[in-house]
Amino acid sequence: MTEIDAAQPATVRVRITVAYLGSAFHGAADNPGVRTVVGDLRSALTRVTGDDVEITLAGRTDAGVHATGQVISLDLPVGIDLENLLHRLNRMCAPDIALRDAEVVSDDFDARFSATWRRYRYTIHDAAAVDPLTADRSWHVPNALDIDAMSTAASELIGEHDFSSFCRRPDADPPVSLVRRVLDISISRRAGHGIDGGDLVVEVTGTAFCHQMVRSIVGTLVDVGRGRLSPSDLPAILAARDRSAAGQVAPPHGLVLAEVGYDGERWDAKTG
Amino acid sequence: MTEIDAAQPATVRVRITVAYLGSAFHGAADNPGVRTVVGDLRSALTRVTGDDVEITLAGRTDAGVHATGQVISLDLPVGIDLENLLHRLNRMCAPDIALRDAEVVSDDFDARFSATWRRYRYTIHDAAAVDPLTADRSWHVPNALDIDAMSTAASELIGEHDFSSFCRRPDADPPVSLVRRVLDISISRRAGHGIDGGDLVVEVTGTAFCHQMVRSIVGTLVDVGRGRLSPSDLPAILAARDRSAAGQVAPPHGLVLAEVGYDGERWDAKTG
Repeated sequence: MTEIDAAQPATVRVRITVAYLGSAFHGAADNPGVRTVVGDLRSALTRVTGDDVEITLAGRTDAGVHATGQVISLDLPVGIDLENLLHRLNRMCAPDIALRDAEVVSDDFDARFSATWRRYRYTIHDAAAVDPLTADRSWHVPNALDIDAMSTAASELIGEHDFSSFCRRPDADPPVSLVRRVLDISISRRAGHGIDGGDLVVEVTGTAFCHQMVRSIVGTLVDVGRGRLSPSDLPAILAARDRSAAGQVAPPHGLVLAEVGYDGERWDAKTG
Repeated sequence: MTEIDAAQPATVRVRITVAYLGSAFHGAADNPGVRTVVGDLRSALTRVTGDDVEITLAGRTDAGVHATGQVISLDLPVGIDLENLLHRLNRMCAPDIALRDAEVVSDDFDARFSATWRRYRYTIHDAAAVDPLTADRSWHVPNALDIDAMSTAASELIGEHDFSSFCRRPDADPPVSLVRRVLDISISRRAGHGIDGGDLVVEVTGTAFCHQMVRSIVGTLVDVGRGRLSPSDLPAILAARDRSAAGQVAPPHGLVLAEVGYDGERWDAKTG
């Protein structure tokens, strides 16, 4: 062994925005034995840099959940050509993962712990027939949903609340807090492929989310949109702090991690 | 055998609008031994009506080509409840095929021969990285395309021309005419999933198309958008009446049969 081998190479912290097709993976986080987003990224990075690289995820999305704006942080050798790196990684990871942009950030940046807000987008196709061109990216609900009732219900969830009724409680002793702050929920109709008047898009922005919280919020709002629940039921559902009080959990394939924000990035800025 | 069994049941001609995911099928037209759109529809109809039903397609789309507005015509027993029929067929055919609406039409209506125009939509993702959420519905071209040059080139193709340079010539003796009338080509940018400024959408409307004509037009326009061809090359490409004069054939997975028009339906009306 030479002295050069023993020396730790100097590194820089890098932030990369990542998009992926959730249905191709068993979740984003590393999980030996199954295909994951981090697993694929690590193999590709090892082939390019020759080193095993540790990757920190902003959000550990579940199996089937997609992303257009996932963020990862990692350490790479000083002086690395990021544009060339992205080009090579994109050739290796396409079409299921795309690395959208990369930048050197300060050494204390952490994709997960530095994040100040996350935005998720959920797509619902509320029409009699399925839309074959988006069936694997949206939840087909065979009833026209009442968007006004859903928006009224959503406004009850904005702010800081104990979201125990909307979360899968982690098995921890002592129990962890499930208090979270929802910054905004917007519900709008988006033109689709000319099929039946388009899809319903629910965007949920919060400082952080507990497990299955967005899908549980969406499932509950859909129950309101169908008339199974009323907007005035929401305060009691929150107060129950009991998962059986809320509606169904919406399926993962309609959910996209759209954006993650860090210090100085406004959550309410206009997004693409 | 009773007299009732021997009698031909009275039928009505029905028109149905159909959407499907092209990648699930080896083309739209019946083709024994492989999965096709008509094959699936015939099996479902046989299970519902008890009879084998002949189906006429407006457009025989190739393997991999999608549809949101394919039209079929067929004969069904007088008095059939079309709403109930669609509901049952949609349950059987989801999620790869959706039957969008059905109506009784005059006995001389033929989905193919009564059609007066067809509109196809082609989606291109022109950015460095692939978009994982639409990779199987759009053609990834890793260069930003020049939309103005493409539009100028497209205008050269509008009108009645011999499209031999843009078609796979059928093996027929005497040779069939490849003169076709293109009514409109529009090229626009559509917001995507927040990935790299969205996709390029090329809509081609014509009275009829020969085989691979839309994909060959799109491939040639992309060569213009990349700067490999100039808009001023188009008249010579048309005049050559030789397939090798045109650009590449765009892949099938970016193409959608969007709409088929019949007598009295304006091709330039605003569409969803």
